Amino acid sequence: MKKRIEDYGIRIGQLPKGPLNKITDVKGVRVGHFTVDTEENKTGVTVILPHEGNIYTHKLIAASHVINGYGKSTGLMQIDEIGTLESIIALTNTLNVGLVYDALVDYTIEMCAKESVKVYTYNPVVCECNDSYLNNVHNKAVRKEHLYKAIENAVVDFEEGDVGAGKGMSCHQLKGGIGSASRIVDLNGTSYTVGVLVLTNHGLLKDLTIAGENLGRELSEKIDVEKREDRGSIISIVATDIPLTSRQLKRVCKRAVVGLSRVGSYMGHGSGEIVIGFSTGNVVKHKQEQDILSIKAVNEEKMDIIFRAVAECEEEAILNSMITASKVVGIKGRVREALKDYIKK
Amino acid sequence: MKKRIEDYGIRIGQLPKGPLNKITDVKGVRVGHFTVDTEENKTGVTVILPHEGNIYTHKLIAASHVINGYGKSTGLMQIDEIGTLESIIALTNTLNVGLVYDALVDYTIEMCAKESVKVYTYNPVVCECNDSYLNNVHNKAVRKEHLYKAIENAVVDFEEGDVGAGKGMSCHQLKGGIGSASRIVDLNGTSYTVGVLVLTNHGLLKDLTIAGENLGRELSEKIDVEKREDRGSIISIVATDIPLTSRQLKRVCKRAVVGLSRVGSYMGHGSGEIVIGFSTGNVVKHKQEQDILSIKAVNEEKMDIIFRAVAECEEEAILNSMITASKVVGIKGRVREALKDYIKK
Amino acid sequence: MKKRIEDYGIRIGQLPKGPLNKITDVKGVRVGHFTVDTEENKTGVTVILPHEGNIYTHKLIAASHVINGYGKSTGLMQIDEIGTLESIIALTNTLNVGLVYDALVDYTIEMCAKESVKVYTYNPVVCECNDSYLNNVHNKAVRKEHLYKAIENAVVDFEEGDVGAGKGMSCHQLKGGIGSASRIVDLNGTSYTVGVLVLTNHGLLKDLTIAGENLGRELSEKIDVEKREDRGSIISIVATDIPLTSRQLKRVCKRAVVGLSRVGSYMGHGSGEIVIGFSTGNVVKHKQEQDILSIKAVNEEKMDIIFRAVAECEEEAILNSMITASKVVGIKGRVREALKDYIKK
Amino acid sequence: MKKRIEDYGIRIGQLPKGPLNKITDVKGVRVGHFTVDTEENKTGVTVILPHEGNIYTHKLIAASHVINGYGKSTGLMQIDEIGTLESIIALTNTLNVGLVYDALVDYTIEMCAKESVKVYTYNPVVCECNDSYLNNVHNKAVRKEHLYKAIENAVVDFEEGDVGAGKGMSCHQLKGGIGSASRIVDLNGTSYTVGVLVLTNHGLLKDLTIAGENLGRELSEKIDVEKREDRGSIISIVATDIPLTSRQLKRVCKRAVVGLSRVGSYMGHGSGEIVIGFSTGNVVKHKQEQDILSIKAVNEEKMDIIFRAVAECEEEAILNSMITASKVVGIKGRVREALKDYIKK
Repeated sequence: MKKRIEDYGIRIGQLPKGPLNKITDVKGVRVGHFTVDTEENKTGVTVILPHEGNIYTHKLIAASHVINGYGKSTGLMQIDEIGTLESIIALTNTLNVGLVYDALVDYTIEMCAKESVKVYTYNPVVCECNDSYLNNVHNKAVRKEHLYKAIENAVVDFEEGDVGAGKGMSCHQLKGGIGSASRIVDLNGTSYTVGVLVLTNHGLLKDLTIAGENLGRELSEKIDVEKREDRGSIISIVATDIPLTSRQLKRVCKRAVVGLSRVGSYMGHGSGEIVIGFSTGNVVKHKQEQDILSIKAVNEEKMDIIFRAVAECEEEAILNSMITASKVVGIKGRVREALKDYIKK
Repeated sequence: MKKRIEDYGIRIGQLPKGPLNKITDVKGVRVGHFTVDTEENKTGVTVILPHEGNIYTHKLIAASHVINGYGKSTGLMQIDEIGTLESIIALTNTLNVGLVYDALVDYTIEMCAKESVKVYTYNPVVCECNDSYLNNVHNKAVRKEHLYKAIENAVVDFEEGDVGAGKGMSCHQLKGGIGSASRIVDLNGTSYTVGVLVLTNHGLLKDLTIAGENLGRELSEKIDVEKREDRGSIISIVATDIPLTSRQLKRVCKRAVVGLSRVGSYMGHGSGEIVIGFSTGNVVKHKQEQDILSIKAVNEEKMDIIFRAVAECEEEAILNSMITASKVVGIKGRVREALKDYIKK
Repeated sequence: MKKRIEDYGIRIGQLPKGPLNKITDVKGVRVGHFTVDTEENKTGVTVILPHEGNIYTHKLIAASHVINGYGKSTGLMQIDEIGTLESIIALTNTLNVGLVYDALVDYTIEMCAKESVKVYTYNPVVCECNDSYLNNVHNKAVRKEHLYKAIENAVVDFEEGDVGAGKGMSCHQLKGGIGSASRIVDLNGTSYTVGVLVLTNHGLLKDLTIAGENLGRELSEKIDVEKREDRGSIISIVATDIPLTSRQLKRVCKRAVVGLSRVGSYMGHGSGEIVIGFSTGNVVKHKQEQDILSIKAVNEEKMDIIFRAVAECEEEAILNSMITASKVVGIKGRVREALKDYIKK
Repeated sequence: MKKRIEDYGIRIGQLPKGPLNKITDVKGVRVGHFTVDTEENKTGVTVILPHEGNIYTHKLIAASHVINGYGKSTGLMQIDEIGTLESIIALTNTLNVGLVYDALVDYTIEMCAKESVKVYTYNPVVCECNDSYLNNVHNKAVRKEHLYKAIENAVVDFEEGDVGAGKGMSCHQLKGGIGSASRIVDLNGTSYTVGVLVLTNHGLLKDLTIAGENLGRELSEKIDVEKREDRGSIISIVATDIPLTSRQLKRVCKRAVVGLSRVGSYMGHGSGEIVIGFSTGNVVKHKQEQDILSIKAVNEEKMDIIFRAVAECEEEAILNSMITASKVVGIKGRVREALKDYIKK
């Protein structure tokens, strides 16, 4: 197994972690990758399956939060309006959004056809970061079959680092990609889980900060990186089994920025920083019979620990995305060094 | 009793009305006025009491919507964040907001002291329109005791027109003020009520449209009004006993603009158009014991009829605010004519 | 030429109209259609070219406004964040968004390659309505070459009604589609233009209101329509040569709802009602040399006439989309009648 | 002079500082305090004067950002809508907002009367934190004359720590209050200034982090603090002479959260975290003659350094608010220790 940030003796935050310390500690959540790794292309697609059933016919309460909107993610508007997620979440590279969106349409029509449900309207959620530093994006190398494969590949104990949509991503000018973390939260004597998955592609080397230590300043004297502004993006997916309303989930999503800031981001102008959250605590069926429904929600006064959990998860997930990634050589001989090769064991 | 728009044979919308055709058809809601009517001052304060108990200790789910934010209403930010209303809603004139806000602080501290509840933080909701055309606003004529009186005066069958906060207001350059309407909505065989109260102070005479007929064009040849842009404001309070989440209530509040548009408003630049909605369908206690709560909400697919109800209520409430108002002569001899004196009986 | 609503002696609003009374009265704007009209498919794509040059390298100040977010439009987030439009705007059917998005990516890469500009990031704007009542959406019948053709077809004096993306759309349960209108606004002695183009697919027959007259109630006794809630959508594109900041444009876009309400919409739950506005009054070059720029903007106090212009354009554009459309028979023998066949000449 | 965080050898960020390292390094900005320091009351009012003239007749472009809206600040809605600030900004305690609001109304009417300008509408900006841990808030001890005195007291080299509105505030369960910092930004060879002033009243001791070091964990073993959730608030005022549009300023304000997170905040549920920003780079006169105006703005691609500046200022300003504050004993014998008594010199 790849060593993660905790394996280096680095402790992020105060709350207990889930068994895998991944978003999939939230029961039912699975993550799948398909990686495109050719001479020209370092890219891929990563999917988050929010529960084990059909997410179109059994929607989940959801919310989104835009930290910085220089991005091309689709599906957020309807999540905000209706407060539900009806799509597998797919992550990919910027210029591939259209093809992946279209593949999700096909997949969802087919998936629902098996249950004799006809899909006439559907809100695909595709989020993206720009991997054009290492990847020839003009090829739009992620195709329909890759999305299908990624869904097939979905598992609980998924891989992190330079895989799936993370294959060509850069974080703080080192190799970034997919990272995750989870925290356990106790409410009324019941254990709930908060998990985060990130696709990291943001930040400058000099700003990289690990558990409060500005390691990046030192590394920027050892590693030669291009001079530039932050034109990255980070996509953060928040999952929890705590029952929350969409408004509450939005508040929860807003705390991702805490972890992001602590790793050294200034939320650069050219960086699309998007958070999408969902809760498995209530299921919203596609066709409900009743006019008045009963839903569960958290006592608003008890939100603090959930906020803390998300902030901690976000910080650790970003660090995991970096520490698990290997060095990648991309187009034009461009190199992204791996953090693990520069950190004390 | 004052004649209302329906008494002129004018039918707004398609849904059935509540018994009083007022916001107070929503059980528990009461409205109180205090009117300041002196040579210099035509102004006042109107309060909406959301239920019969202590709204600070028994909060209601609420939402706000800003159609045009050229206004000074207070309390919206916290309603949006926490999704609850913990205050009596007070309406008054623009420069009086500070004093009425402060009076609400005093009132709430005293009201809670009776129940041995100490108030250290409290979110007063004060909305305003600018009655300076008829009223000498520099006097800030609404005082603490007036707010207290308005609360004391609160009743179910309240008066409309040129009363309370509506005393000095102008609507479509005729006399405006307080108006209300309600609609009955059936969900799962149960009758629910949607009610709206407006404080109207917006619009130009030439644009006034009653049930689709642009009466204002004709009236503007008979009545001499000042040439100006729309610098008004309209405050709309939406109440319902349908259980709704804060997100759902915000969607409901957004439909007030339909009624507003149909009466002829273009939502002028200088007009503060604010909607606040609350539902009596769930009570949120100040100190909840449980971490996880059960709340009721409407099946999102059944929202349409509620949207229609609010649109109809808003349109009729605006018309009621005008048709029930009498001609008022204010400062500098300025006159606002009454619609009832110009409409065919 | 197709007869438009004004040709029936119906006057909407008070402001003077542009020479064509279309969005293309704003200098530089062109509109192109490609229509797919087969037994199975009644659909297409419509493009709005914001100016005569390359919109990617010469961006325009823009804004969006979501009236009701039950929709799948792409590109709004970045418009809101950065305040600029860098894409041709494409309109199509719901399940075709991915393919049209991807086609825009290809087109923009190619268009820029001709000027030796490499495109690594790009924010395609695709808006959609759901034409599945008449069109077999599962075919995703709009293909890459159709988008290219639509762009080629772009002209100033474009067609309205059941063409392009409007081929399969329904408005107030009659035939809808593409409509447009414009108004002339005088500022400091200079004539400016405000134009609106709509793709209409919303509303119930019984609510249809033309110039204040609820014609729909009467028609609903003559025309047999399916019983249903409003599951439509309307996309509104606002163009102007008045120099406006992005914040000002957003305020302008918000006034589209006035026209929409007046034609009888209640902004149904299942309807995606999106407005995108752009101004040709300032050009934002892709690579600016200067750190501090000078831009033109309207004196905020003079916004009222622009608001009025948009409200009038929206109302007339919706009516034009209906009155210019012919009866269409779609899948399963479903029929949408044409308004022109039921209105007095 | 009080020692500031930099006097302890602690360096926050990378950019050069202004001469005073305070918000008043932005030319024209002044800050004034009035402190109420009695046995019962530890509170006060602090005012930010945005420029040397009359801010009502010479408005500035402004924006606000709500990080967490559990607060009672007034005036944000109109700032967001119109994009301008027309008020001195006043900071005080929660229950005193009404009185300070009203005092601002009086002050502005009088100030404008001297220039023969009549004020009929005015948008007072009052922000608050809750100092009820040390202060008897029920007295509403800040009165009209105190606001006037604070304005009179306004200077460039103002005091920080437990003064003015900061007298009774707590930060990370130590003494907080007023803090400030500034950074110099170079654009096209010209030096511009970004400054921040904070009123700090948020956070838990165990989370306090200084320049990456979690000092709070250690201190929480030495200092006995009440067990509680974060029910604080922090108000951040951002000033700059860089010409920015309101949309750009909002983006700038959003970066305050970076500094806030780095000092250890999780943005607790009960904490009102509000940012207001203004730019002195364009003046918007109350009555403009021209319909089309020319304004200056930053090239959007050059925003990064401004974002960085705000993030650095926010972090340092929070630390300055703590390190300059002295220990305060408040009501019921409650004590807030001073950070300076626990930090190594």
